[in-house]
Amino acid sequence: MASSTTTAYVSGQGSFERDTRYITTRITRDGADGYPVEPGRYRLIAARACPWANRAIIVRRLLGLEGVISMGLCGPTHDERSWTFDLDPGGVDPVLGIERLQEAYFRRVPDYPRGITVPAIVDVPSGAVVTNDFAQMTIDLSLEWGEYHRDGAPELYPQRLRDEIDAINAVVYKDVNNGVYRCGFAGDQRAYERSYERLFARLDELEERLTTRRYLVGDTITEADVRLFTTLARFDPVYHGHFKCNRQKLTEFPALWAYARDLFQTPGFGDTVDFAQIKRHYYVVHRDINPTQIVPAGPALANWLTPHHREQLGGRPFGDGTPPGPVAAGEEVAATGRATST
Amino acid sequence: MASSTTTAYVSGQGSFERDTRYITTRITRDGADGYPVEPGRYRLIAARACPWANRAIIVRRLLGLEGVISMGLCGPTHDERSWTFDLDPGGVDPVLGIERLQEAYFRRVPDYPRGITVPAIVDVPSGAVVTNDFAQMTIDLSLEWGEYHRDGAPELYPQRLRDEIDAINAVVYKDVNNGVYRCGFAGDQRAYERSYERLFARLDELEERLTTRRYLVGDTITEADVRLFTTLARFDPVYHGHFKCNRQKLTEFPALWAYARDLFQTPGFGDTVDFAQIKRHYYVVHRDINPTQIVPAGPALANWLTPHHREQLGGRPFGDGTPPGPVAAGEEVAATGRATST
Repeated sequence: MASSTTTAYVSGQGSFERDTRYITTRITRDGADGYPVEPGRYRLIAARACPWANRAIIVRRLLGLEGVISMGLCGPTHDERSWTFDLDPGGVDPVLGIERLQEAYFRRVPDYPRGITVPAIVDVPSGAVVTNDFAQMTIDLSLEWGEYHRDGAPELYPQRLRDEIDAINAVVYKDVNNGVYRCGFAGDQRAYERSYERLFARLDELEERLTTRRYLVGDTITEADVRLFTTLARFDPVYHGHFKCNRQKLTEFPALWAYARDLFQTPGFGDTVDFAQIKRHYYVVHRDINPTQIVPAGPALANWLTPHHREQLGGRPFGDGTPPGPVAAGEEVAATGRATST
Repeated sequence: MASSTTTAYVSGQGSFERDTRYITTRITRDGADGYPVEPGRYRLIAARACPWANRAIIVRRLLGLEGVISMGLCGPTHDERSWTFDLDPGGVDPVLGIERLQEAYFRRVPDYPRGITVPAIVDVPSGAVVTNDFAQMTIDLSLEWGEYHRDGAPELYPQRLRDEIDAINAVVYKDVNNGVYRCGFAGDQRAYERSYERLFARLDELEERLTTRRYLVGDTITEADVRLFTTLARFDPVYHGHFKCNRQKLTEFPALWAYARDLFQTPGFGDTVDFAQIKRHYYVVHRDINPTQIVPAGPALANWLTPHHREQLGGRPFGDGTPPGPVAAGEEVAATGRATST
């Protein structure tokens, strides 16, 4: 995907394989791919439900790019063809003037044959998707858009830590971010169990790492934390039951759970998370593993707001920078989706 | 059911309604229904997977009736027609000589039209089911078979506590024992949420009750504890995820979890529980809510054996009696199904 509309969620047999052929055009300072960095020109299309899109929402906010790159949000569910702007008045994105994200893909590639995924960045003047390469997207927000970052924006991908961040991102992607999907969409018992073992072995390793370190890399938040966080936020509400990632809940990993709460309570993380949309997305869209489409009422989520005591490990979330201010007007998570609502 | 083969697990809409029309013939001292208490004459047919059958397995063992009423065990899965004796050599119950429990139902009622359920007690000479009325069955083991109870057998349904036991059994049945099924088999979101609210409201009440009392009624184990226990044993392995009873895990209720472990570690309870068969039953049989039939590898279960400290509340599990001895030869839970195996 990232969060795609056309993936066969449960393969006939064996392992789930993610289609990773994205539109890899980049928006850069030098405009080498034809799309130069330019304030007001691009629109991030995301969905709060999707962990891959959630990364981009977080990074955009941490870096203070709200006034430079606008954001459109698709609703939590979609049909076989496309994510839609069903949350917007009239079901139309107010900037792009389209009902279905698919239209922006078709403007870029007529009859685009792969999944219509979020996050996608759209070139507003042409209405065409520039990129849906979610992994490169957040890196480029850090490295190519520096001129437009807010004062005090954190360095999420600093040169000196890049190798370490890349290394941990690679294993977290394989075993955790995508690993939960490999559990949930496994085509047979054996493929499921293999993914389950890898997932929990990796979580055990991360648990140990985070027992003595506040953040994954260095002593501030980085791109690595953003990527792990969006999976952890969905772990108990969705992956534990729906994807059968149930050796234990996130709340039963002392360090990982405190780490996840620490980030959740850091401006830019938890204030982007809509638990109601997250649950609705997975349980309604994946009819092949939840044919009733009933959405679980649990788990209780108010515990995301409890003290985490991670300050005792030192570290400074924003390094020499500062936290972002309040969420931009119109971009607040609905009250129904907040941890306090349950 | 109890655990039936023909229930439409997910009703078209609205609430799940259990078919409670059982064969209510009783085996009594006076033989009023034509089936007098008689050692060696009857065979209990159960399945370790089934919570309703598990009750009978526990009570038979607590009372020491193993030498008086023999036991046959069906495997954890069944087809649309019947539970089967697929665990036995040749797939045939060695006493009844049948492959499918349905045959014993047909000997009692030709073309028996309702679910083929466990537990059932079969009259060995005629090969016909006497009763599948699981609620009366365990009461009768206590009250009608007293002459054959082992020395030191507990009083599970003492006269002086009967009203209190009946009252708590009624609400536990409605909101908990059957309540979890009403969550899992709800035909729509609203019916699910109504059952979920009732389930957890009742569990909250039980949590409070068991915070200061070691057992549900009186200060010894009773029929009430047997009935709650078999649902609690299945809560985290099955009901939490499969039936969406996920406000919290059993392990997240301090008193209920300690209570469940206390019983689990009491001879006659935990030594009848086969977690592997339990998980396999629900996740494989209910294709309508788990079409992949993949069985979750979790949760970790070794924590059932941790100290519970419930002795501090006083109480004596067997009152003036004694615990049962070792599990009868040939009736041991397979190593793969024990809490220590995970």
